[in-house]
Amino acid sequence: MENVYFNRVEQLRRLMAERSWDAVIITGSDPHSSEYPALRWKQVEWLSGFTGEAGDLVVTADHAGLWTDTRYFIQANAQLAGSGIILHKTRVPEQILIPQWLALHAFPSEKERIVIAVDGLCQRVNAIKELEAAMGSAGRSAAAENDESSYRIVSVPDLLEPLWKDRPAIPSTPVMSLSEGTVGERRTSKLARLREFTRTKGCDAILLTALDEIAWTLNVRGSDIEYNPLVISYLLVSAEGAQWFVRKEDGAADAGSLEVFADLEAEGIQVLPYDDISIVLAGGYDVPGRLFVDPSTLNHNLYSILEATFTDGRLVEGDSPVGLYKAVKNSVEINGMRECHIRDGVAMEKFLYWLETSVREGTVPVNERGAAIRLGEFRAEIEDYQGDSFETISAYGRSGALPHYVTPQRDAPVLEAHGLYLVDSGGQYLSGTTDITRTVPLGPCTMLEKEDYTLVLKGHIDLAMAVFPKGTAGCQIDALAREPLWRTHRSFGHGTGHGVGFFLGVHEGPQDIRQNFNKVPLEAGMITSDEPGIYREGLHGVRHENLLLCVEDGESEFGSFLAFETLTLCHFDTSAVIIDLLTEDEKAWLNAYNARVFETLSPMLPKDAAKWLEVKCRAIK
Amino acid sequence: MENVYFNRVEQLRRLMAERSWDAVIITGSDPHSSEYPALRWKQVEWLSGFTGEAGDLVVTADHAGLWTDTRYFIQANAQLAGSGIILHKTRVPEQILIPQWLALHAFPSEKERIVIAVDGLCQRVNAIKELEAAMGSAGRSAAAENDESSYRIVSVPDLLEPLWKDRPAIPSTPVMSLSEGTVGERRTSKLARLREFTRTKGCDAILLTALDEIAWTLNVRGSDIEYNPLVISYLLVSAEGAQWFVRKEDGAADAGSLEVFADLEAEGIQVLPYDDISIVLAGGYDVPGRLFVDPSTLNHNLYSILEATFTDGRLVEGDSPVGLYKAVKNSVEINGMRECHIRDGVAMEKFLYWLETSVREGTVPVNERGAAIRLGEFRAEIEDYQGDSFETISAYGRSGALPHYVTPQRDAPVLEAHGLYLVDSGGQYLSGTTDITRTVPLGPCTMLEKEDYTLVLKGHIDLAMAVFPKGTAGCQIDALAREPLWRTHRSFGHGTGHGVGFFLGVHEGPQDIRQNFNKVPLEAGMITSDEPGIYREGLHGVRHENLLLCVEDGESEFGSFLAFETLTLCHFDTSAVIIDLLTEDEKAWLNAYNARVFETLSPMLPKDAAKWLEVKCRAIK
Repeated sequence: MENVYFNRVEQLRRLMAERSWDAVIITGSDPHSSEYPALRWKQVEWLSGFTGEAGDLVVTADHAGLWTDTRYFIQANAQLAGSGIILHKTRVPEQILIPQWLALHAFPSEKERIVIAVDGLCQRVNAIKELEAAMGSAGRSAAAENDESSYRIVSVPDLLEPLWKDRPAIPSTPVMSLSEGTVGERRTSKLARLREFTRTKGCDAILLTALDEIAWTLNVRGSDIEYNPLVISYLLVSAEGAQWFVRKEDGAADAGSLEVFADLEAEGIQVLPYDDISIVLAGGYDVPGRLFVDPSTLNHNLYSILEATFTDGRLVEGDSPVGLYKAVKNSVEINGMRECHIRDGVAMEKFLYWLETSVREGTVPVNERGAAIRLGEFRAEIEDYQGDSFETISAYGRSGALPHYVTPQRDAPVLEAHGLYLVDSGGQYLSGTTDITRTVPLGPCTMLEKEDYTLVLKGHIDLAMAVFPKGTAGCQIDALAREPLWRTHRSFGHGTGHGVGFFLGVHEGPQDIRQNFNKVPLEAGMITSDEPGIYREGLHGVRHENLLLCVEDGESEFGSFLAFETLTLCHFDTSAVIIDLLTEDEKAWLNAYNARVFETLSPMLPKDAAKWLEVKCRAIK
Repeated sequence: MENVYFNRVEQLRRLMAERSWDAVIITGSDPHSSEYPALRWKQVEWLSGFTGEAGDLVVTADHAGLWTDTRYFIQANAQLAGSGIILHKTRVPEQILIPQWLALHAFPSEKERIVIAVDGLCQRVNAIKELEAAMGSAGRSAAAENDESSYRIVSVPDLLEPLWKDRPAIPSTPVMSLSEGTVGERRTSKLARLREFTRTKGCDAILLTALDEIAWTLNVRGSDIEYNPLVISYLLVSAEGAQWFVRKEDGAADAGSLEVFADLEAEGIQVLPYDDISIVLAGGYDVPGRLFVDPSTLNHNLYSILEATFTDGRLVEGDSPVGLYKAVKNSVEINGMRECHIRDGVAMEKFLYWLETSVREGTVPVNERGAAIRLGEFRAEIEDYQGDSFETISAYGRSGALPHYVTPQRDAPVLEAHGLYLVDSGGQYLSGTTDITRTVPLGPCTMLEKEDYTLVLKGHIDLAMAVFPKGTAGCQIDALAREPLWRTHRSFGHGTGHGVGFFLGVHEGPQDIRQNFNKVPLEAGMITSDEPGIYREGLHGVRHENLLLCVEDGESEFGSFLAFETLTLCHFDTSAVIIDLLTEDEKAWLNAYNARVFETLSPMLPKDAAKWLEVKCRAIK
């Protein structure tokens, strides 16, 4: 076969044979458990061609499989064609995850013990623990008699290096520091909160490994990872000081970064080379007595080093508190988010006006790629724009049926003056992060398109209008957005809402709104998306997404209540709405929202666009 | 003090001093973890006077506390007055449960090690494990140095016996056997299912300890426990046979029961004396190799015996499968439930007609107790009526503000021709179990009463109309019933829905609809209540409750869907409904439901009642 990925898998199998590995696991993540890794760590993509944002590979002598979730089934089937790699579906009722699959299938009958090779740098500690748990129970019958384990996990950092000749290096981009006026809390205050937490856990220091947690704590940003303003680094915070392990060696750092480093040093934060983390923690320097780590983002390689140093229960595992600190925005961050959503809304409306005019006039054909580029241009006009917050999904008609569609580089589908165009995009600004999806009727729509459009909007509105008691978790109100679809046997396979960072990752926890059993309550100050959808393969996709700020809604004899304030400002097109499907409350919400969009944005729009928007925002009866 | 319960606690303290116990835990349950125990095991009531259905006591030298949940706060405060017993609230955010409380408070400063006495017969294994976990971590600092445990739990069966002179004996009522035509599945088939389960768990036998699971498996019923048609017993099912441990000794069994026992013996089920369970399982007879037990209903006393016999991992713990078997009703059970709800509805409508006429005419005053008795009389007219399924809650006006109000024996409040009367009741029939709450406007209502009445009804309807994909758990749709209340900062502190048995307990798992994180999906054939409410202390209470049967609702490209069929048949009074608060869909549901009630029940009602019902069921606009 000629397929490049088929050949790469075969090369890996030869390497496995040489090293006597029975199975190899390759994850789509990096040493910091990032959702979006830098190019260097896109190992799944290199080996399989799959470009989805979530996917792990397992290769054995006779099987190669990709595990990914509902969002990527169609994309994975297309991208894996010819590679010989089989799609394993996750987030479906009958899912068999990698640990269970390996326990069931990785034992060749003639072998007493199998060897599983993992890239320990890119495997979370928790993932290895799950693997051990599954293999442990699977192997018992085989190995119970001689009390020997029936499998061995070998951790091989940069496992694919021998095959991946032109693998990119670890990136090292300029570092910037954000002022208190921008983020609302000094890093000294954040470090003090962390030290207090560490003390309550009976520890002397805490190691932060997640890049967004480090960026939040130090009020620093970079661009080491596409769309994510992060700096690849580790942060060790002890009672006395803090050590930031960051790529500064080999003259990698520019003048601006050096200035930031100097500022940090002046505030008592030692700046050390990235790779020194293992030397320091292996006891090369003074090590703290008891160290707190978060095994959900700590990589297995570093964990092994720590385990050897911090013996006798001195390594304490738990959830990092920064996730929650970061999720609850302070008033400066909230005001920043409100402001950047106004400017982002102006860009969106300019884009939608341009889009409608261009497609209807039809003089120059607009294709999906051209539309995405034009939207990026409108955003780039905004003063403190720092880039997009993720790759724009620009999908016309049937392309919209893939929730995470990637527009082809060449021959992208052309938008026509009928049916639905779905655009999911966002910007990074010094004052915040945006994430918005609009489904745009480009002309006449079928009844099915209108029904889907309206019912998804109904679900979106019902969640946006929700009021709920303090202590309520997202999974407990998720059904409000789904029930309007379920009533007519419609459904969607992704979450309804994810947390959003402040000029940080467009996806963050710990809260979410989805059909899981995540117990983290929604809190005032948290920002979460509201994005129900419907996807019909071969026909169209609908998704309506705004960001919602959770706010206090008052008290009564029955307790304290929370509600949502919609941050996103961009009209919902009412031309595809079947009015009779909405309740009076839903209509009132929609009219009030569109009126607010017009009032807020029109003064900042060119006259012709403002006039167009006025018509778009007219109330429905 | 003269208070009888204060004196009993003092007597217990003297016993504790004699035996050197630092703390005593008394549970409100029996050796089978029953929700409703027989009189013999109402130890909490005997010691504290508290009659709620859920409550545990802890007594130390200087503290006596009752732990109970939101449903019983007002009742507990009233019943504990003068006893010196303090209410500890559970199911509230800041709750400190018994294990944690003991860990925090049970250590007198001068003591190295404390002794906690429990009635091991009435403590679930899991409760003791939770206690050990909490005490273990609490005691570490005190006992770490000499590596000795800082506490000891002593298990004392029938701990209160020395104090409780006239304690009732274990009841032994007639046993009846239900035919295949009544329950839809022979006991041999049920035993075969259990044996298959036991085999898949790698076990040789399974011990059933929960009384409703045993009754379901053997198709037997009794009346050992008020409102619960159960037989106090244990059931051991092995690959070869089955042994039922039941009170048959001392000539306790009547002729009918002996006949049932003989039938069972003929089917290969050995009937043995109740107390033999410990002898058999302690190895007095042949014991199975590996035994499966459910620690959520197994008592600690029996567990200790089993632990000594089934060593080397031969005791396997897990959830009994019978909970789920029992919850999913077969077609015979479903038809039985439909039928008994028609007859129950006739009794309810006769009662409501009588109530309205009596209260409005006002010639003879009706009080809460009189109303409850009259309702029981109407139910008793039904052919296969076996008794009530729980104690009727008959609550006028402010009495309704207690979700689990108990009408006083004397001087019960008189119903007046205004405001709201709440009646929550149910019957046990050979063909099923009912549970219904109606809130009845007895005349003019305040605006607040009407709003509460309407919004609770809105929540009830929204859940009743729900459609949802297979795999959805109750906690994921619970908010549908609550959101209409939350919008105006109203709320209620109990679950929205509990499972209901087939001529068995009116409360059963494993599914429910409430704000927990119970992952058990709703399945076609499950029956669950739908009972949102609002409770305003000093004013009134509103609750609207029907039983819902989960049914298949069809398939689409998005999957398989489920919905609810309302089993309960009794009109909702529309006179207190504020029509504008309902959506068109909700109005349509209400009108269709009331029309169905009239059509189904009126042919079985006396002419005057049928005529009255016709008016009651008229559609609202």
